[in-house]
Amino acid sequence: MFQPPRGTRDFLPPEMLRRNWVHDRIREVFEAYGYEPLGTPAFESWDMLKIKSGEDVIDQIYYFRDKSDRELGLRFEWTASLCRVVSSHRELRMPFKRYAIGPMWRYERPSEKRFREFWQADVDIVGVADPIADTEVLAVAVDCLKAVGFRGFQIRLNDRRILEAFVELVGLPRERSLDIFRAIDKLNKIGVECVMEELARIGASAEASRRLLELTALSGAPKAKIEEIRRTLKGFPVGLSGCDALSAIDEYASAFGIKPYMVVDLSLARGLDYYTGPVYEIYAEGFEDWGSIAGGGRYDELIELFGGEPTPATGVSLGIERIVSLLERKGAFEGLDLGPQVYVASASEFVRAKAIEVAQMLRRSGIATDLDLMSRSLTRQLDYANRKGFKRVVIVGERELKEECVTVRDMDTAEQWTVRIEELPEHL
Amino acid sequence: MFQPPRGTRDFLPPEMLRRNWVHDRIREVFEAYGYEPLGTPAFESWDMLKIKSGEDVIDQIYYFRDKSDRELGLRFEWTASLCRVVSSHRELRMPFKRYAIGPMWRYERPSEKRFREFWQADVDIVGVADPIADTEVLAVAVDCLKAVGFRGFQIRLNDRRILEAFVELVGLPRERSLDIFRAIDKLNKIGVECVMEELARIGASAEASRRLLELTALSGAPKAKIEEIRRTLKGFPVGLSGCDALSAIDEYASAFGIKPYMVVDLSLARGLDYYTGPVYEIYAEGFEDWGSIAGGGRYDELIELFGGEPTPATGVSLGIERIVSLLERKGAFEGLDLGPQVYVASASEFVRAKAIEVAQMLRRSGIATDLDLMSRSLTRQLDYANRKGFKRVVIVGERELKEECVTVRDMDTAEQWTVRIEELPEHL
Repeated sequence: MFQPPRGTRDFLPPEMLRRNWVHDRIREVFEAYGYEPLGTPAFESWDMLKIKSGEDVIDQIYYFRDKSDRELGLRFEWTASLCRVVSSHRELRMPFKRYAIGPMWRYERPSEKRFREFWQADVDIVGVADPIADTEVLAVAVDCLKAVGFRGFQIRLNDRRILEAFVELVGLPRERSLDIFRAIDKLNKIGVECVMEELARIGASAEASRRLLELTALSGAPKAKIEEIRRTLKGFPVGLSGCDALSAIDEYASAFGIKPYMVVDLSLARGLDYYTGPVYEIYAEGFEDWGSIAGGGRYDELIELFGGEPTPATGVSLGIERIVSLLERKGAFEGLDLGPQVYVASASEFVRAKAIEVAQMLRRSGIATDLDLMSRSLTRQLDYANRKGFKRVVIVGERELKEECVTVRDMDTAEQWTVRIEELPEHL
Repeated sequence: MFQPPRGTRDFLPPEMLRRNWVHDRIREVFEAYGYEPLGTPAFESWDMLKIKSGEDVIDQIYYFRDKSDRELGLRFEWTASLCRVVSSHRELRMPFKRYAIGPMWRYERPSEKRFREFWQADVDIVGVADPIADTEVLAVAVDCLKAVGFRGFQIRLNDRRILEAFVELVGLPRERSLDIFRAIDKLNKIGVECVMEELARIGASAEASRRLLELTALSGAPKAKIEEIRRTLKGFPVGLSGCDALSAIDEYASAFGIKPYMVVDLSLARGLDYYTGPVYEIYAEGFEDWGSIAGGGRYDELIELFGGEPTPATGVSLGIERIVSLLERKGAFEGLDLGPQVYVASASEFVRAKAIEVAQMLRRSGIATDLDLMSRSLTRQLDYANRKGFKRVVIVGERELKEECVTVRDMDTAEQWTVRIEELPEHL
C-alpha cells in the first residue's frame, strides 16, 4: 500500500475542513487590511533561491532539474518570490501590500511538530520605511489569530541593529555577528551553557559572552526597556536607531490596538540572515513553550539583492501547522459545523427522481445538501445521515408528494414535520 | 533579473483576485453538493505516480530524488492521490465524495494555452457504480461553470465499452484498443487523414479504419443516437452495457437539470488509459474550438490497481486556466469589484493616530480598508486612492474630529458629507 512521502501528510475531510476554515479566516483578515493576493510558482530557479539563504536553508531545499537541465527548487518560504516579483515589476504602485497563503517544502527531519510540506500565510508591505508598516503587519497577525480563536498574545520585539551594537559593545568581531545571532537565537532551545560553548567556538571570550548574554537577557514592557537600552548604547548610533524604531512601533501599537501584547525581548534574533531592522515573534498565551506561531521582520536590503531598486520592506508569516495544532489542543474547533447540512432521503425507489430535484433546488439556493446515491432503504439512509452528522433530513415520500410536500426531520430530536417543497429552501 | 521558471507564471493582484474569485465560486458549488475537501501532498512517490500513467504522461512528470534518494514526482493530476488515499483508508464511509482544488505540474511544451504549472478543480464520487454518480458530477461541473458566468454548454458523452465493441465489430485487434482510442481522440485536432494514417500504423486496414471512423462520427441528441448504437451493437453485450449507462445518465439528467446540454459523441475517447465506462467532456457554447473546459469519466478498476478493494469511482475535473482565459475573453470579470473598498486619508500629520484607529474599526467590522502609510499629503493620498480605484475615501480632519466626525467622499461623484465615527461601519 502506498503512503504519502516521508514528512508529508494526507488531510482527510474532517481535518481538511478545519484547515480550510483557518485559511479562510486568515484570508478575510488579510483582505480587510487591504492586502492583495500575489501568485508565484511552487518552484523557482535554483540560482534565485540561493541568493538570500544561509547554508542550512539551502541544504533543506528540494532541488531538481527539469528535462532541459534547468536547476530548480521547491519554494521554502514566500519572501524570495515576492522580492523577485517586486524587482522585475517596477510598475507596481507603492506601497505594495501583498498576501500569500500556501504550502512550502523543506527537507527537514520530520517530527510531531515539523513536516516537509507545511503551510505559511504571509503579509508583507513593500515600499514603506516607517515603522508604521511593521506595526500594521503585527496588527494583521494578531487579528488573524483572534479570528481563529486565540485570545492572549505576547508580541516579542527586537531590532537587529541593537544586537549589532551589543556585539560591538562587548568587543566581539562584527563580521561574525550573524553566527553570534544564530547562537543567541537558540537560547530558549539549548540553554545558556550550550550558547556559551557556541560563542566560544566563534572566538568569544567567556567574559564577552557572559556580558552579551546579560545584555540580551533584558526583556519587559517596551517603554522602560527601550530607555534602558538607550542608556547602554549611548555612542552607538546604529543601535540607537534600532531603539527609535522600537519606540515608534510601541507608539503606533496604541492606535492599532495591539499595545497590551508588546514585549521587548533582546534575545530574539531570528535565524534568517536578511533582516535589517525590527524583528518580531508572536506567542499564544499559555502556549509559549510551543514556540512562536507568527514571526517576521524588516528586510530593507533584500530587494536590491534580487536586482531591484533599493526598496524598504517588512512582513510577517503565520505558521499554519502550529496554529492548527494549538487550536486542536484548545478544542477551538469543537462546535464548528463545517460539513454539509441537509440530507435528502427517498422513501422509495419511485420518488428517487423527485428526491434529486429537491436536492438540486436546495443546492442551487446555496444549502449544502447530500442525497442517497446507493439506492439504500429509508432506514439505511437515515442511519447514514445520522452517522455523518447531518442535522436535518428531508424525506421525500409518495403520499406527501401528492400535496407537493416533503417531511423534514430534526436528527437530534427525531421530531418530524411537513413542509411545502417550494418553501423548503427558506424553511431550512 | 530573475523570471519565473519556464512555463510557470506570476499572477499579480488584479489577476490573482479574479482567479481566487473563480476558485471560491467553484468551492461553494462543490460544498453545496456535499463534497468534502481532501488534502494530499504536492509530490508523491514515483512508483505510485507510474502506476496509472501512460508513457506520454510519465515523460511529463517533474521527477526528483530527495536527500535520502527516494524517487519522487510532482503531482500531475488529482486522481492518483485520491486512489492512494481510498486504498489505504478502508475506514472511509461510502460514498466518499471528495473535492480538491490546486496546482498541478507537467513538463509540457509551454504555449499560450498550456503551462507547466496549472490548476485543476476535481470532484469524484467513490463507491457508487450506478450512473447517478456520473450524472451528479456532471451537474456539479455545470453549476460551477454557471456560477462563474458561463451560460450555454455542450456535455459530450461516450462510453469506453461502446468504443471497445466498435473495435471488435470492425475487426481491429482488441489488444491495441488503447492506441486506437488515442488515435480517435485526436480527430478534432489532426483531422481524418492523419487519424487514418495513425490507425494504419497500428495495423488497421483502410476499410476497417473507414468503418470505425464512420461509427464514431455519430453524434447527436442522446435518446435517438443510443437506440441507433444499440441496433449496431446487437450481439456485443459489453457495448450494450455502455448504451445502458448512457441511457441512465440521460434519464437522470432531467432530475439534475442538465438534460438540455447532453450530446452523445462517439468520437470522444479521452487520452487517459484508466476509464472503464462513461466518459464526458464539457464545452462552453461559442467556445467549442477552445476545447473542453471540464472532463472526466468512470474508473472502476483503478483503486484496485493501487492495492485497494475493488471500488467503483467516477469524477470530473475543471480546467482552471482555460476557464479563466475564456472568462477574460467574455469580459465576465468586468464590473466585479474585488479589491479593498475604503481608503482612510489623514488631513494632517496630527490626526494620523486617529486615522489608524478609524481604519482599524472599519477592518474589524469586516470592511476591506486601506490607509496612508507613507505620510503623504492629502492631495497625494486622494490621488493614490483614485488610481487604485477605491470607491469611498474617509478623510480624518482635525475640525471634524472635535465633533467625533469624519468626512466621507464618493470618488465617482466627488460628493462629500460628514458622518459620526461610531456610525461609520454601518454607514459604509
